[in-house]
Amino acid sequence: MTTRPIVVAAPDSFKGSISASAAADAIASGLMRVWPGMDARRCPMADGGEGTLDAILARGGQRRSRTVTGASGAPTDAAYGLIEGGRIAVIEAAQAVGLTDRAGVSVDVEQRSTRGVGELMRAALDAGVREIMVGVGGSSTNDGGAGMLAALGVKLLDAAGAPVDASPHGLTSIGAVDAGSLDARLAATRIVVMSDVDNPLTGARGATAIFGPQKGVAAQRIAALDAIIGRFAALAEHALARRVQDRAGSGAAGGLGFALQLIGGELRSGAEVVADLVGLDAALDGADWLITGEGRSDAQTLLGETPWAVARRARARGVPATLLSGSVDAGALALLGEHFAGCFAIPAGPATLEQCVSGASALLTDRAEQLARLFAAIHL
Amino acid sequence: MTTRPIVVAAPDSFKGSISASAAADAIASGLMRVWPGMDARRCPMADGGEGTLDAILARGGQRRSRTVTGASGAPTDAAYGLIEGGRIAVIEAAQAVGLTDRAGVSVDVEQRSTRGVGELMRAALDAGVREIMVGVGGSSTNDGGAGMLAALGVKLLDAAGAPVDASPHGLTSIGAVDAGSLDARLAATRIVVMSDVDNPLTGARGATAIFGPQKGVAAQRIAALDAIIGRFAALAEHALARRVQDRAGSGAAGGLGFALQLIGGELRSGAEVVADLVGLDAALDGADWLITGEGRSDAQTLLGETPWAVARRARARGVPATLLSGSVDAGALALLGEHFAGCFAIPAGPATLEQCVSGASALLTDRAEQLARLFAAIHL
Repeated sequence: MTTRPIVVAAPDSFKGSISASAAADAIASGLMRVWPGMDARRCPMADGGEGTLDAILARGGQRRSRTVTGASGAPTDAAYGLIEGGRIAVIEAAQAVGLTDRAGVSVDVEQRSTRGVGELMRAALDAGVREIMVGVGGSSTNDGGAGMLAALGVKLLDAAGAPVDASPHGLTSIGAVDAGSLDARLAATRIVVMSDVDNPLTGARGATAIFGPQKGVAAQRIAALDAIIGRFAALAEHALARRVQDRAGSGAAGGLGFALQLIGGELRSGAEVVADLVGLDAALDGADWLITGEGRSDAQTLLGETPWAVARRARARGVPATLLSGSVDAGALALLGEHFAGCFAIPAGPATLEQCVSGASALLTDRAEQLARLFAAIHL
Repeated sequence: MTTRPIVVAAPDSFKGSISASAAADAIASGLMRVWPGMDARRCPMADGGEGTLDAILARGGQRRSRTVTGASGAPTDAAYGLIEGGRIAVIEAAQAVGLTDRAGVSVDVEQRSTRGVGELMRAALDAGVREIMVGVGGSSTNDGGAGMLAALGVKLLDAAGAPVDASPHGLTSIGAVDAGSLDARLAATRIVVMSDVDNPLTGARGATAIFGPQKGVAAQRIAALDAIIGRFAALAEHALARRVQDRAGSGAAGGLGFALQLIGGELRSGAEVVADLVGLDAALDGADWLITGEGRSDAQTLLGETPWAVARRARARGVPATLLSGSVDAGALALLGEHFAGCFAIPAGPATLEQCVSGASALLTDRAEQLARLFAAIHL
């Protein structure tokens, strides 16, 4: 065995199983069995969805917690982060209005609201940040971001000037949007929207048509709900004198992407932002090999998901990037294969999904070890 | 991608799924996706058991067929091979008395006989060979090789001098063994017994105690059957004036290993003999990498099974050997890992045994391709 190589462990989380940090640790453990004492460069990754806050805070920063209005209206504890000495806030929408909201998503999607996201942003403004990064993936809402705007001071009114609820249900009777009381601090605050979704707000490729069904929108309600969101969006754009609903990413998180862009947010790839924040480029400096991975790799992986973004950066620096996921879709292998120095899955034989999920950490360590043994044998 | 490396594909069969030849082809197909036009060096392997004849004949020779007495007494078609210009016969005992005998192993093991193996040997002698190699793995018999000896002229007699059946049941009344009519051509014929079993004929580590149960010997019959085989063995040894029942391998194939050694057979590791016959060393000459594999790898793999024997030869020539099996036992990974340049399994995610068995060829190709992608990326 030659000298120890420099290896970067930069996995996404294995959703429903282990966090990106735990995955990076598991990979590093496997490498250490082959190269004792090796200190793998761990860069837990995320794509702007669930796990983004954890991945970013793994590199340092303060974790704060605040009780906010959950998607269904019940109070929920949500974490957010302060990094770069408190200059930047990191908010993960899923913390407040995620699909795994404890209060339950049994409340109809037309009653759910992103108000809690706006409350977290207000908390960040109160903390004095100059920049707010919002990871919007994994939301359970489809309110066009109305709740977030309302929490930041935007008034949603019916034709008679009475306030309406910041939910699709409330928006059915919206007559006007008044942005006069929008939190003034936002004007001096940079907002970054972390998303890998480039859909527009409405229409056939819009939030409701594409992502509504997985949030509980019945097929026969799609058209009506899309129209409600569209009417709200037009009024909101009028109030803020800006048109963004056709921009890429406005359809992210049930239109939260629209509302954030409406108040000046810039859309960026979640994986790219996280890669910057966790210092992936620096970790790749002089590295011999990189291992990335995620719960399930398929054709979606090539559409901007974390391993793909990681592999692209690795390739740009001449570092071979190997994919090691919970599973790799055989149908996508031909495409995936071109972008990775090998695509592998964690099972060591016939195994159930449950075995792979509950044993992910140990399986990941075993597989990383074996890949490292091959690497050690042929890397001269 | 640099120039094409030289790669040896030397798998065993994936038992119950694909032959060693099919496995070697599947591996080669995967390599060709990465290195188009590459001609992998295919060395289908075997360990002396089922698949040995196919693996050896894949390198040339004549396949012959003969109707012989199956283990249960019914006629059965069995193949054997002539190699080296007809100088050597290759016999696979499982062809005549295998566990997958079509006539069914419903006939009690105490009625089963290795007569068919002796008939194949006689056919080989009739063909004028100077050497007979007998792979003894995968038999369904436990007759101490009495049937094989009887087919070659040895007389099995009761106390009154009347012939007894060459089965454990017949041997209960054996009183004498007369080797006077043993086929005289055997004296000028080299016999090689291919086996990976080193058990003695009788006792706690003997054929009946260790392998009897999987052939249908009831727990309460083990002692009695072991005594019957022991008494027969003593008489046979007396008749041939040679003592071999305590030799390693006498307990192979229900004592067929004993009887073959009794008539002068030399015991050799099946995998080593096959490696010689298929020219593994020549294939390793100047090779950059080797991939071996089998249906299931576990701690047994290190006890002389094919991948282990293959890896040892590869290591002796400085060629990294990677294991790619249907499954790799997690508990044996620490041991296996030290002997292979990575141990991998074919599944690409959660999968049932049935999916792995029926899809083995395609999965093997996919996995070999991905291993080759990693190899190509790091082999400078």
